[in-house]
Amino acid sequence: MTTLTIREAEARDLEAIIRLHEEDELGSHGDAWTPENRPAYEAAFAAIAQSPENSLFVALDGKEVVGTFQLTFIPNLTGRGALRVKVESVKVKGARRSGGIGGLMMAFVEEEALRRGARLLELSSNKTRTKAHRFYERLGFSRSHEGFKKKL
Amino acid sequence: MTTLTIREAEARDLEAIIRLHEEDELGSHGDAWTPENRPAYEAAFAAIAQSPENSLFVALDGKEVVGTFQLTFIPNLTGRGALRVKVESVKVKGARRSGGIGGLMMAFVEEEALRRGARLLELSSNKTRTKAHRFYERLGFSRSHEGFKKKL
Repeated sequence: MTTLTIREAEARDLEAIIRLHEEDELGSHGDAWTPENRPAYEAAFAAIAQSPENSLFVALDGKEVVGTFQLTFIPNLTGRGALRVKVESVKVKGARRSGGIGGLMMAFVEEEALRRGARLLELSSNKTRTKAHRFYERLGFSRSHEGFKKKL
Repeated sequence: MTTLTIREAEARDLEAIIRLHEEDELGSHGDAWTPENRPAYEAAFAAIAQSPENSLFVALDGKEVVGTFQLTFIPNLTGRGALRVKVESVKVKGARRSGGIGGLMMAFVEEEALRRGARLLELSSNKTRTKAHRFYERLGFSRSHEGFKKKL
């Protein structure tokens, strides 16, 4: 019997969040909770916390962090000035995948987006994550775009 | 002989920007500069102007608006807290396409992203815009992701 909850991330969650990034061989970008990296994560966490348009969330099972995602609210002219929400860095703890945590997080995303007046959700997902793509399509997302990245 | 310049959009550019959206049958989402829509565009423009993380730009040929794009700076944990930039609503006036305006705008984007300390550029482009995809790939973007959208 588990009780899943979702709340905004706090500074004390940062290590657990980065551990979820570490687990993800694909999206990890060399991420690891090391003494050298810690200041950079703390600075990024502070920047997210400070930004009214960004929110970082954690999904908890009891006190254990089992998932995370970030929302970015983006004012935009398109669609008669429709506010959009970008969903980013969606991670579920490896051992807990396919257990409904992702579905719960995305239901929360939709509710939060509507509550803040957004009319469009968007996200991009690495082309190799075919299981995630089916998941997003089941939730009503349309795979209408190509996602481009360029490292600077 | 033309002189192209790029600067942040001002309120007086709004009609010209929406005219570029109007022209774009694919990405237009019913956008049109009408009396009914105007307040929504003005509100979205004000929200962008107010946000330290969002900037709307215009490309000008003399005094004529011939292109537009929006940048969103997104603090993120991934990649040891790498700041990323989302490039959005990239439009070039129909009659002026393939004339170097897009290339100029994207060079500006890269310079501005570096100036503000970003380490990753990202954008999504409708799957039917194959010409734009080749353009982004020529600029060094990798088409690594699927782009998902869901209207709320």
